[in-house]
Amino acid sequence: MSGEISFARGAPSLDIIDVEGLQRAAAQALAEDPGGATAYGTAVGYLPLRSWIAERHNVAPEQVIVTNGSMQADALLFERLVGEASEVIVERPTYDRTLLALSQRGARLQAIDLAADGLEIGALEQLLAGGARPALAHVIPNFQNPAGCTLSREKREALLALAERHDFMVFEDDPYAALSFSGEVPPTMLSMAPERVTYASSFSKTVCPGVRVGYLVGSEELIGEITRLATGTYISPNMLAQAIVYRFCAGGALERSIERVRAALAERAKALSEALCEALPELDFNRPEGGYFLWARLPEGLDVEDLHRAAIERGVIFVKGTDFMLEGGERHLRLAYSGVGIEQIRAGVGRLAEAWRSLR
Amino acid sequence: MSGEISFARGAPSLDIIDVEGLQRAAAQALAEDPGGATAYGTAVGYLPLRSWIAERHNVAPEQVIVTNGSMQADALLFERLVGEASEVIVERPTYDRTLLALSQRGARLQAIDLAADGLEIGALEQLLAGGARPALAHVIPNFQNPAGCTLSREKREALLALAERHDFMVFEDDPYAALSFSGEVPPTMLSMAPERVTYASSFSKTVCPGVRVGYLVGSEELIGEITRLATGTYISPNMLAQAIVYRFCAGGALERSIERVRAALAERAKALSEALCEALPELDFNRPEGGYFLWARLPEGLDVEDLHRAAIERGVIFVKGTDFMLEGGERHLRLAYSGVGIEQIRAGVGRLAEAWRSLR
Repeated sequence: MSGEISFARGAPSLDIIDVEGLQRAAAQALAEDPGGATAYGTAVGYLPLRSWIAERHNVAPEQVIVTNGSMQADALLFERLVGEASEVIVERPTYDRTLLALSQRGARLQAIDLAADGLEIGALEQLLAGGARPALAHVIPNFQNPAGCTLSREKREALLALAERHDFMVFEDDPYAALSFSGEVPPTMLSMAPERVTYASSFSKTVCPGVRVGYLVGSEELIGEITRLATGTYISPNMLAQAIVYRFCAGGALERSIERVRAALAERAKALSEALCEALPELDFNRPEGGYFLWARLPEGLDVEDLHRAAIERGVIFVKGTDFMLEGGERHLRLAYSGVGIEQIRAGVGRLAEAWRSLR
Repeated sequence: MSGEISFARGAPSLDIIDVEGLQRAAAQALAEDPGGATAYGTAVGYLPLRSWIAERHNVAPEQVIVTNGSMQADALLFERLVGEASEVIVERPTYDRTLLALSQRGARLQAIDLAADGLEIGALEQLLAGGARPALAHVIPNFQNPAGCTLSREKREALLALAERHDFMVFEDDPYAALSFSGEVPPTMLSMAPERVTYASSFSKTVCPGVRVGYLVGSEELIGEITRLATGTYISPNMLAQAIVYRFCAGGALERSIERVRAALAERAKALSEALCEALPELDFNRPEGGYFLWARLPEGLDVEDLHRAAIERGVIFVKGTDFMLEGGERHLRLAYSGVGIEQIRAGVGRLAEAWRSLR
């Protein structure tokens, strides 16, 4: 096998996207609601999709805004809630683009380490006891990017209790919820304490990323304020894409797509875990139980920067742990298995092992 | 005829949108480039569409970014170029959302009146001679929103000469260029002085608004900077929608759609002009030569606020002139004929005339 093998990008390979289902959904969207799919909408999004999402989360439609991807939703939320010098709790490690977006707004970031069952609640308690006054805690509760871990139900309760006591909002950033290999995840914090939570998710991982449809769920007041910001930024999100996603969901293609994606990801995660165990027994990691990512730790004395360089020379790429933290991460790496097939995974791990051996 | 008749919204009616052409384009986009249409792209947009646009404007692809509608492009451009207290030249009247977006950034707006052939160049010269140091002049050169006028070729040259002499950028905001009833418009300022111009347009008026595809053309350096801002905001614009627009354009549907839209708008503009002349001879306006809007002036002693209120009571709406200016506009109104059929136009003018008579 030649050509670069990428464990870098958190994106699905084309073979797990239901292109035919999208074709049918596009034809239906334009045939059955040509006006809604082609006209300007309002910034809340395509109304049937908004209602469909609201029903799924058991909230009122007025608590939902459907956006051009969930990063755009994050940007609007941060514009509303995060000012210069606002304190924001983030996970350590966490999604690099979230760190960047928050840093650029001048937020003071407080990073809390992750355990296998999510956020180190004790460390957060200490920070709060020490006088921290966060406006927001950003948490990716399921199959975290990059760490792969899931916040346990007990820790969700503990986090919400802290949010209540110290009066901050939990931003539950949840794009991977549907991708559990067992089909199970703890309940959303949104469902546990709706008044303390703003929730974001997207269809990037269950329909496809190119369709750029994400959403926020929150209080009617906050969603109203964010809708005004969105109106001033782009008037209306993509009605055609949202109408297509709506038909995809309402027609049952979504559930089939999720099954297909889950099965493929489970198979890839297993292949990657097994290949790593065999080729690189010194690499420390937990087997993924869902999502896109395997997060691994190098043995002492091996720097991820060196491994990254040696890997690129051998035609395999991944993301260094340092990208996901404000400081540290030199012994970590993120391997995304969402975009690679089984054969590529095996070949990629072979190259990675070669790179590793070149450094020892 | 009952129900509200709206001359308010600058949006096309469904009967002038090529829904079947969009269906074909969607099927083709997904069949012929499923990867490109469904994956994350980069913030520059769908590459075949970007190249198609570049060719149309005779620039390099690196000078183009394709965005989620042109308002999003404006927002990114303003984020890059307009700081707190930046001076910005705007037309008077001009698009209300542009005024709002600039005001919210804290720009100091300098409004220059419009004549039948566009910007009052003498007034701009005076302003500049008086020490104004604008960063940007925002101009809608063709079938201006709301005034309907087109900037003459001579005035385009004069404006560019001033931009050169006083070192400011012209932001040529040009969504209506294709909608000339005669098929002719003066050359773009972008083509006349590319180093002084950043150009924006969109497919909202030629394909449909719901597809939310707009674009910016500028220097490679500026487009590069804006691409970085876009990456940080939404990673990738809507690839599916852009792939659909590309197939619509490349397959020839765009030219047919433009012909159909032009013919319908010309017919509506004529019907509106004739109905107004007959029913409201005291109303002063120029007959539109393209675009979506008829801009009219009330006789002295009649306030647009009163007419607006009386019109709503009779089931007809329009936008008050005051919405398009920082101050003034009390004797102006904008009538959009893009979203109403001939019968509605006649009935709407009848209601407007009733409203008028109720005030005299």
